[in-house]
Amino acid sequence: MAINIGVIGTGNIGQDHIRRITQALSGASVVAVTDIDPARAQKIAKGLGGRAETTGQNLITAKDVDAIIVTSIGSTHEEFVLAAIAAGKPVFCEKPLATTAAACKRILDAEVALGKRLVQVGFMRRYDAGYRLLKEVVTKGSIGAPLIAHCAHRNPAVGDDYTTDMAITDTVIHEIDTMRWLLDDEYVSAQVLYPKKTSKAAKHLADPQIVLLETASGIRIDVEVFVNATYGYDIQCELVGETGVARLPEPSNVLMRSEAKLSVEILTDWKKRFIASYDVELQEWIHSVASDKIAGPSSWDGYAAAVTADACVESQKNGKIVEIKLGSRPALYRQVSTSSI
Amino acid sequence: MAINIGVIGTGNIGQDHIRRITQALSGASVVAVTDIDPARAQKIAKGLGGRAETTGQNLITAKDVDAIIVTSIGSTHEEFVLAAIAAGKPVFCEKPLATTAAACKRILDAEVALGKRLVQVGFMRRYDAGYRLLKEVVTKGSIGAPLIAHCAHRNPAVGDDYTTDMAITDTVIHEIDTMRWLLDDEYVSAQVLYPKKTSKAAKHLADPQIVLLETASGIRIDVEVFVNATYGYDIQCELVGETGVARLPEPSNVLMRSEAKLSVEILTDWKKRFIASYDVELQEWIHSVASDKIAGPSSWDGYAAAVTADACVESQKNGKIVEIKLGSRPALYRQVSTSSI
Amino acid sequence: MAINIGVIGTGNIGQDHIRRITQALSGASVVAVTDIDPARAQKIAKGLGGRAETTGQNLITAKDVDAIIVTSIGSTHEEFVLAAIAAGKPVFCEKPLATTAAACKRILDAEVALGKRLVQVGFMRRYDAGYRLLKEVVTKGSIGAPLIAHCAHRNPAVGDDYTTDMAITDTVIHEIDTMRWLLDDEYVSAQVLYPKKTSKAAKHLADPQIVLLETASGIRIDVEVFVNATYGYDIQCELVGETGVARLPEPSNVLMRSEAKLSVEILTDWKKRFIASYDVELQEWIHSVASDKIAGPSSWDGYAAAVTADACVESQKNGKIVEIKLGSRPALYRQVSTSSI
Amino acid sequence: MAINIGVIGTGNIGQDHIRRITQALSGASVVAVTDIDPARAQKIAKGLGGRAETTGQNLITAKDVDAIIVTSIGSTHEEFVLAAIAAGKPVFCEKPLATTAAACKRILDAEVALGKRLVQVGFMRRYDAGYRLLKEVVTKGSIGAPLIAHCAHRNPAVGDDYTTDMAITDTVIHEIDTMRWLLDDEYVSAQVLYPKKTSKAAKHLADPQIVLLETASGIRIDVEVFVNATYGYDIQCELVGETGVARLPEPSNVLMRSEAKLSVEILTDWKKRFIASYDVELQEWIHSVASDKIAGPSSWDGYAAAVTADACVESQKNGKIVEIKLGSRPALYRQVSTSSI
Repeated sequence: MAINIGVIGTGNIGQDHIRRITQALSGASVVAVTDIDPARAQKIAKGLGGRAETTGQNLITAKDVDAIIVTSIGSTHEEFVLAAIAAGKPVFCEKPLATTAAACKRILDAEVALGKRLVQVGFMRRYDAGYRLLKEVVTKGSIGAPLIAHCAHRNPAVGDDYTTDMAITDTVIHEIDTMRWLLDDEYVSAQVLYPKKTSKAAKHLADPQIVLLETASGIRIDVEVFVNATYGYDIQCELVGETGVARLPEPSNVLMRSEAKLSVEILTDWKKRFIASYDVELQEWIHSVASDKIAGPSSWDGYAAAVTADACVESQKNGKIVEIKLGSRPALYRQVSTSSI
Repeated sequence: MAINIGVIGTGNIGQDHIRRITQALSGASVVAVTDIDPARAQKIAKGLGGRAETTGQNLITAKDVDAIIVTSIGSTHEEFVLAAIAAGKPVFCEKPLATTAAACKRILDAEVALGKRLVQVGFMRRYDAGYRLLKEVVTKGSIGAPLIAHCAHRNPAVGDDYTTDMAITDTVIHEIDTMRWLLDDEYVSAQVLYPKKTSKAAKHLADPQIVLLETASGIRIDVEVFVNATYGYDIQCELVGETGVARLPEPSNVLMRSEAKLSVEILTDWKKRFIASYDVELQEWIHSVASDKIAGPSSWDGYAAAVTADACVESQKNGKIVEIKLGSRPALYRQVSTSSI
Repeated sequence: MAINIGVIGTGNIGQDHIRRITQALSGASVVAVTDIDPARAQKIAKGLGGRAETTGQNLITAKDVDAIIVTSIGSTHEEFVLAAIAAGKPVFCEKPLATTAAACKRILDAEVALGKRLVQVGFMRRYDAGYRLLKEVVTKGSIGAPLIAHCAHRNPAVGDDYTTDMAITDTVIHEIDTMRWLLDDEYVSAQVLYPKKTSKAAKHLADPQIVLLETASGIRIDVEVFVNATYGYDIQCELVGETGVARLPEPSNVLMRSEAKLSVEILTDWKKRFIASYDVELQEWIHSVASDKIAGPSSWDGYAAAVTADACVESQKNGKIVEIKLGSRPALYRQVSTSSI
Repeated sequence: MAINIGVIGTGNIGQDHIRRITQALSGASVVAVTDIDPARAQKIAKGLGGRAETTGQNLITAKDVDAIIVTSIGSTHEEFVLAAIAAGKPVFCEKPLATTAAACKRILDAEVALGKRLVQVGFMRRYDAGYRLLKEVVTKGSIGAPLIAHCAHRNPAVGDDYTTDMAITDTVIHEIDTMRWLLDDEYVSAQVLYPKKTSKAAKHLADPQIVLLETASGIRIDVEVFVNATYGYDIQCELVGETGVARLPEPSNVLMRSEAKLSVEILTDWKKRFIASYDVELQEWIHSVASDKIAGPSSWDGYAAAVTADACVESQKNGKIVEIKLGSRPALYRQVSTSSI
């Protein structure tokens, strides 16, 4: 039986997910949409043969909607996710789960009170084939216990409205989630360093930055974030373990010999880097909704990312090593850490 | 509207395609199946909520069947593909299109007589992400006009029933199709050389072999086929052009540093190497059926592969350079050579 | 005219240098040696057709000795280097220049007082072909202004007598010198972090460690030092610049496909990693002695390395960011920073 | 004791070797030179502090000349090498040993008659670090018995005076020698194929070409020779064995990330590709002269290369598979095949 999905927010990412469900994935169809711009919602609905709802609340409670995708602006996430929990329906919420750690905590509490996982957060890197291979290497013990991780997150350029804290909240947020998942560990401290600034960055922006994270078991993670790196969109991750070192695969491409260079193209468009991950993420979510076993990134993961990002932003401002305190992980989220996702 | 598919042959590959359509792809469902083993067909049909037909002919002509997938044994392909053409229904036929060049020609002639493409042959490599990137490199002119291609097709081992001619008909057949497509050219001669034989091969088997192909425009292709290479399943392809050289990407994997080696794992199971290609192949086929524009590997491609394989097998036996004569390509298949597939 | 060389200290490294001069390099011969073990000195001298001197002082002042190589134990370096300066003779001193920053400063002052460079310190990495290519990339501006450097220094294992501070004074000391030279910059602060400890390290040893260095222009350098990495001897260096990233070449080796791995061997013996550098280093030194233009790593470089190492060791103990103050660089050493070495 | 060397021919390669002996290598000095241009010989001699001889014969028989290097034009090699054998002095002769197989045979016969190896031919690739690593892989059995070799020899461009047969005699001649040595086997047949011609080649030149060689044990070697490949000077060699595949290392260079490419520079100047090999070659030769044990590429190797090249040129003309007959290898050269060189 196909899952009937309602989509809240029909901007770029919402339309992408609708296209996936309709053109590329199995087991679901989009029956209702809603948007802050009713005309856009109407137009998308018409193209789908579905209907436009006037509000997110109506969409969530509609009888024929089995599950909800939230791709509206971040500030609306808390409201819609809480409503979905209240309605007892599975909800896939694009990152961030909510815009503050406190709001994430409220979602977490509501889900814990219900006693059942309904929420999945859109951390798509966990579905990237390369990261999954890396996770497998760690899980199989091929490098022994991980001790250190070296990461880099480089963009070719950013707009003028990109601010120093967005290096954390929009960019490193992906490493924050991915490294917790890869290492199956929680953070205890964060520190941000400012290297020499590139002349390519806007006057108001500190770029590059180095984020240092420490986990409960003592693993040290360094993340270079460099959003005006000019040469390409480049995600690097190297795990150093007791008996070996494992590196995230480079995106596969043709090996060229031309113009005195042996080369492989580097992507410049971030959308292409994880495009396949979004397909896998949504297909697995659809299957998990069908089998009533939500297993992807949880409210706890969304909350932990928010708290860690707050600590990083604080360190950006005061230059200090900032402690990270998550509190204890509710039992509802325990099993996740041992699953393959 | 979902396409209703009937599947003839519910062995391994048939079941794989059914799983794809049901679990991973969009836009189609399997409504009927048939198999030489009626009990197996019944069982599969039941799991699907579909029905088992008693014969392929019945399945093909059933009113609710929009399109047919033929995954039965090769010797039955001609009959079913011709029946599908007669019924005016799109048919996806696993390789080989038919077991002789003459039978392929009969299919070709029937389709040409109809004046419309209905047949797609299951040459899945054209849907592999790596080969598509390589095709793009050629098409964009990044290496100039291709002059030479070096290929290798290595398997870790084969069963005792694998014979010398199967190196052509089961193994190099993939290079035969892929290189025609990559180079957009037809073959004019073939020659097979026997290097020193590996001690790992069965007594009756010549292994490795080198196949030399020449195209109408003069491009030379060498294919090393080595089916007891022991170390892994490894597909290599390097195109040498006027201004550069392009090599098929290695399958993406984690870069490891351990035990005094910097290494990437090589696949040993051929099924994993092109598993993603099958998904893309069938999804594009479903979309092409829906839009009534079959565009994948054609009857002509199936025929050209069969004629070329025959020439190679002849050279295996007489040690000579064997001429390849395809005759002229019917207009129905002209446009294919300029499409991206 | 061949340069006549006297060698103080005929242990392993001394014998290696003697072999180089005698068997592999041009333009010099060893005429005299001395050692704390007179019998060993006699034996080596005999093999060479040279003579053994009873003391380093005698060797230094001997009329037929044109230049001196000091390969005795570190604690004796200051005395012999000062004596060579007093005798006005070129001296090649293995690292460390002296065992304390104060002693290095005395050598520096003596050389400055003389007003002529006579001292070269044995930082051989500057002569490694890979590091030289990396230096060329920086100098040519191929990555723009360097902003960050990521380094790793991994050994398979160390003996039980290797202590936590030796990670700085014996191991990272090479990165300390090499990065100053590559970046043409001086350090202003150092900090040491302790990641989760490997179970392979001795009880008394902190391993791995992360050393963070900051330069006058703001470049940030992180050095992972991991001396029980088990898998091999592995030196990594990546420079992140405004427009690109450059990585030290891996040692060249055969690319193997075997046992389901695409692999290149990693060295396990550190001696092999820089063996060619020692040849280049000594050959260039011999030529520089012949032309009376000492140009390799200077007393200032030896002094800067000592001061920086002291700061790192202090940070190991107090966990703080430690300031590095070198004082101003004497004019005698100015030109070095612009030379290709 | 330093070896006194006389150099016949002071053109580019002669001057290079003189520079090596004088500036970079140990154990020899150049005492006499001669050249077809006496003024050039005088000038070079003066720079060296040596003397110019009026003829090669005088140089060879001069009492103070211990060993001879022949770097004059190819057509003079036979005369000088035979004279050196007559004088009982070691002679290092740049390739070709002589310009015809018959002349090579006369040298071979003279040396066999003497009963002692005096001749070394300048096949420098055997001294390349990469090829030596590849040889080691074969010798250690890491890929099992070799069955096939794939080679490519690409130059960016050639002058207008480069003719079709020079692809064999000047270019593939290196693969002819190197593959015999790597595989420790003799050739039994040769065949040349002409792929589609590049538009970058001169009208009179067939480019690229494919040379197929077969050895006594049945190993098949394919050599792509492409001298207007435009993109760089690129030497590839892959050995396929019973249990694995080994590939010649790419020249080591900095791994760059810039301008949307992950790249390593490819050399364009062939002189740089094997420059280090010449140093190793001459240093080992000097040591072998000193120890009276010539062990490098022999007269037999020079003869075998000449006979094989003749067969390739014949196949270029008649398009056939041409048999190669060397006759039996004299006992004098037997031990060479088991040595590490």
